[in-house]
This record gives sequence, structure tokens and C-alpha cells, in this order.
Amino acid sequence: MRIAVDAMGGDNAPKAIVEGVMLAKKEFPDIAFQLYGKENEIKKYVTDESQITIIHTDEKINSDDEPVKAIRRKKTASMVLAAQAVKEGRADAIFSAGNTGALLAAGLFIVGRIKGIDRPGLMSTMPVIGKDAGFDMLDLGANADNKPEHLVNYAVLGTFYAQKVRGINTPRVGLLNNGTEETKGSELTKKAFELLSAEPSIHFIGNVEARELLNGAADVVVTDGFTGNAVLKSIEGTALNLMGLLKSSIMDAGVKGKLGAVLLKDALRNVKNEMDYAKHGGAVLFGLKAPVIKTHGSTGPEAVAYTIKQIHTMLETDVVAQLVAHYETTTATEVSQSE
Amino acid sequence: MRIAVDAMGGDNAPKAIVEGVMLAKKEFPDIAFQLYGKENEIKKYVTDESQITIIHTDEKINSDDEPVKAIRRKKTASMVLAAQAVKEGRADAIFSAGNTGALLAAGLFIVGRIKGIDRPGLMSTMPVIGKDAGFDMLDLGANADNKPEHLVNYAVLGTFYAQKVRGINTPRVGLLNNGTEETKGSELTKKAFELLSAEPSIHFIGNVEARELLNGAADVVVTDGFTGNAVLKSIEGTALNLMGLLKSSIMDAGVKGKLGAVLLKDALRNVKNEMDYAKHGGAVLFGLKAPVIKTHGSTGPEAVAYTIKQIHTMLETDVVAQLVAHYETTTATEVSQSE
Repeated sequence: MRIAVDAMGGDNAPKAIVEGVMLAKKEFPDIAFQLYGKENEIKKYVTDESQITIIHTDEKINSDDEPVKAIRRKKTASMVLAAQAVKEGRADAIFSAGNTGALLAAGLFIVGRIKGIDRPGLMSTMPVIGKDAGFDMLDLGANADNKPEHLVNYAVLGTFYAQKVRGINTPRVGLLNNGTEETKGSELTKKAFELLSAEPSIHFIGNVEARELLNGAADVVVTDGFTGNAVLKSIEGTALNLMGLLKSSIMDAGVKGKLGAVLLKDALRNVKNEMDYAKHGGAVLFGLKAPVIKTHGSTGPEAVAYTIKQIHTMLETDVVAQLVAHYETTTATEVSQSE
Repeated sequence: MRIAVDAMGGDNAPKAIVEGVMLAKKEFPDIAFQLYGKENEIKKYVTDESQITIIHTDEKINSDDEPVKAIRRKKTASMVLAAQAVKEGRADAIFSAGNTGALLAAGLFIVGRIKGIDRPGLMSTMPVIGKDAGFDMLDLGANADNKPEHLVNYAVLGTFYAQKVRGINTPRVGLLNNGTEETKGSELTKKAFELLSAEPSIHFIGNVEARELLNGAADVVVTDGFTGNAVLKSIEGTALNLMGLLKSSIMDAGVKGKLGAVLLKDALRNVKNEMDYAKHGGAVLFGLKAPVIKTHGSTGPEAVAYTIKQIHTMLETDVVAQLVAHYETTTATEVSQSE
């Protein structure tokens, strides 16, 4: 399998990206990596050239570039070249830690949508606290406005991912809503509830509330991109603030605090590990003809390696091809039924 | 000032409610409390009868009652009688820890809206971490669907509250959005951004992201009720889960963990205190002709006392009357302009 890597994307690029690739290739000798970016800079971190091809380009997309413009005008940017390789069948997946909006645009306009999926969604596997588990949530912000039908797409996408990539037989799909009762919700979620209830290819368990997400209320959580984005950022912001507050409170407690912190080192590390969802990989722009994966701009080599593992599983299980087949069958059935 | 108290609302009623009233009345000799509910049960906790009037009723609204039906059918429920007292000018404010939906319905249908405010919003003062401050956010879920105009109402309501009740001269109003750039957002937030920018009675600072709320990105944060509800529950869920995880990790660390926890007792208490926004009072259903205030069903006497302090400030500063005057002037101006 061939992964196109935007080596220039992210705050610590190309160092963190290339070091992550070096970590990952030890584990996955079956991956051929294509590193797009400045050859001289990339080469500094290539400790072993096997499985590696560098495709040189001087141009890159910056974090403050306007996404769609950047994709259209910077035709030789590392991200654009990587996406082009996927489009033209020279690579099987693309990975970037760069400008999220630009990667979404590259995914939509260069890699292209699966037929039957109107609005691909951004999906991450988030942590379930106290269990070695996670839940997949989408859309996390690829779209600012969604229709009820999109949420059904997300339920199907999330189900396929949870089954194939995370190995859950019958993933429980929940609809994020403002109450668990069937009658609750906005115009959007009420209609989505109806459609999800009628969808045969998923196991819909009803509404779930944001308060219960980290408790594992569902294996797949579907929501519109605006709400998903707000929920993701609320969870991240609260966790960061609480851990920061704990740290500063410990510091302020002087010698006693420092001693306490030493004794609680393992416990505190456990808390941090549980919340760290980078181990599940990056965010997938899901619903495209190939895996398009994004990690945080501030990502380090280990998170890059986790993400490559995730892409490896996506390619190994051929989840995208199965989605394509699913939508072809569904569309064919619908057409034959309507004839 | 006269506060109508639904003594039967909440999981620990009437005990927690009446005990909270007893705490509060020491601090506020100028409040006359009307306690609605079962006289015999209430009396058990009335340690001093000054400032207290009990209005007996056997009926109450349960937490699983369908809100609007309950308000219409249970005409002598403690919550309904309390709301009626406000409507008829026999009390100045109503407080309940009972069924949220029913209190919203009682507020809308019995107490009534301020002229010019189409959709009252549910507002709480949330914590800003590391500072002795907070931010007011609305709508937290009184409505499932909002129009851009409602968000302007919320900005005005929040501004008045932050100024009068929290003593902030020029509250910074932020619009919760999926990015800080002006061009970001859903159809709703883009239009709301325009309207907020043009509203002369507020100090609009632009978009804020959910990740920055607890850092004090704004003094007043406006959003639609669906998103607000999801964000509030995400923050609560994450904080609860993290504190729970920390506790269980400490327990699992054996003797070392217990000793560490003893040494860090003050630091851990500090974290808990910072996140505890009950000190700012309950949630206000804001935009009604009188203060209608809700606290958590699981609330204890201290949180009840904090909420009564909040109501005291709302009545003392006459914030609702000032809002009424504001909207009368605005409406009058609009009418004269359109003539």
C-alpha cells in the first residue's frame, strides 16, 4: 500500500512528520511512503531510505491560507501534489497535519466523493473514560449546515468504520440530541431520528446526550458539523483547562504539593493517557474515494505513527471500497424499486 | 422583596430547599419567602418562622411529567401556584429545582414574556478557570431552534445581566462559532454576526470558539439553544468524567495514592471549587416579566442559598424592569422610524 504524506503540513513539519514515518515503517514494511515537500529539509530526518520516496516541491499551503483559494492557486503545494497522486491512482491514501480547511477542500475537489454521499464528514475516534474503548463521532466540522439525510450517511459511514477498522460487530449508533426521549430535538434532529430509525444497515439506539458521550453512550455518534465542532472543542477545552488547573494548583501547594505529585505520578499519567485520543489516530474526512486523514498541527512523531497505523488498517480492511459497494447497491436498489 | 419558592421541586425536596432558604434568610432579612408545598413536610425543616409563609398544596409536578401538560393539568401544583403568585403580583420572583421543562412552560405561559423578546433563553453564569470570574451563556436549551434575531435578544439580555447583576461595566459579547474569523459559521451564525455587529446597545467582540470559553474569551456568549445545550453538557460531562477518573486512578494507586491525595487535598479542592459554578446561582429563564430561576435537581442547601442571593441581586438591581424599559424604548423608536 502507498501513502501520500504531506511532509510540510503542521507546526513541527517536516521534522515530526518524517520522524513519525520512520517510527511507523518499522512496524509496517508493506507501506511505501511518498513524502511531498522540500527534499533537503525532509532528508535531514530520513534515517533509513527504504520504503521512502521523496517528491520535491518548494510550495506549501500555510495555516492561514484561505483553503479553497490555496488549493486552486498553489498547484504544486505539497498537499495538492499528494492529493493529486491519490486521484490519479499513484497513491492509496493521503495524510496531512496542515491546514484543515485546505485538506477538506483537497479531499472534496481533488480526491472526490463516494457516489451517494452528498457531504463527507470529519470523524474522530474519541475516548471512553475508564474503558479501553472509544466512540466515533461525525461530523466534527467539515460542514457548517447539514440536512437530516446527511446524518444518515454519517451513521452508515461510522458503522462501517467501527466494524471494519475498530472491530466492533454491531456498533450502536446514537443521535446527539438535547434529551434522550424520542420526542426531543430540533427540526433537524427530529427528522434525522425518523430517518435513522428506518435505515436498515445500521443499529440505531436512539438519542444520546453530550453529557454521556465520554461514558460510552454509543459506539458511533452522529450530529451536524456545527454542533459536532462545538462539542469536540468543548470537550478538549474542558480537559485542557482542568489538567492545567490541576497542575497549577499542585504547583501552588509548595513542597507538599510537589511530594503529593510525585506519589500520584502514575495516577496523573493514567488520567492523561485516558484522555489522549491520538492513540486512535487522526481525523478522517470520511465519504471520499480514498482515506484522507488529518492530525493536529501540533502533532508529534508518535501521533503521526498512530495515524499511519490507522491508515494501514483502513487500507488493509478496504473499508472505503466496501462503502463504495454499499452505496452502489443501495442506489441500484432504489433505482430498481422506483422503476 | 418576595420570592415564591417551589419547595417540592428537586431530588432532595423539600429538605434541601427549605434548609437553603434558612441559610439565605440570615443573610437577607429583606426577603419574604413564600414556600409552596406540603406544609407538614416543609415545617420539619423550618427552624425559624420569621420571613416565612407556607402555602400548602398536596399536588406537585414530577421530574418525568410532560412539561406543558403538567402545567395545564396540575393547576394546584406547587410550581404552578408559585408562578401564579408572580403573575398576580403577589411575589416578585420564582425559584424551583424541579422539572426544567415544566418551569420553562410555567415561565412562558404563566409569568409571560417581556414585550419585544420572542424567545426567552436559559442562561447560566459559567466558570472562567484560574480567575475569580465567570461568563454568561445563553440559550442553554430553552429552545431547540433559534433564529438570528433571537441571538441578538440574548446578547442584550446577557449584557444587562452582566452589567447589573455581575457588575461588569462593558461586557464583551461573543458569538459561539466554529471559527474566530468573520466569514466562518453556519447560515444562522453568519446572519447573527451581521445583526450583532449592527446592534448599538452591546459591545460585540466577534466570534468565540467553544475551546476558549472557560478561558474567559467573552463575558457573555450567545448561541442557539441546541448548541448551547450540547456545549453545557459537554463541559459538565468532561469535568465530571475527569474528576471521577482522577479519583479512581488515585484509589487504584494504593497506599502511595492515598498519601499523595492527602498531600494534594487543598489542590484537589481548589480544582473542584473552580469548576463549581453553583456559587454564581442557578439558571435564569431570561426574557420574562420576572426572575424565573432553576437549579439542578440534585442541588444542596448551599447551592439553594447561592441562588437566592442571585435572585436578591436581580431584584435589588431591578434588571428585569430595566430590560422592559429598554425594549419599550427600542420598540417605540422603531415604530416612530417606520412612520
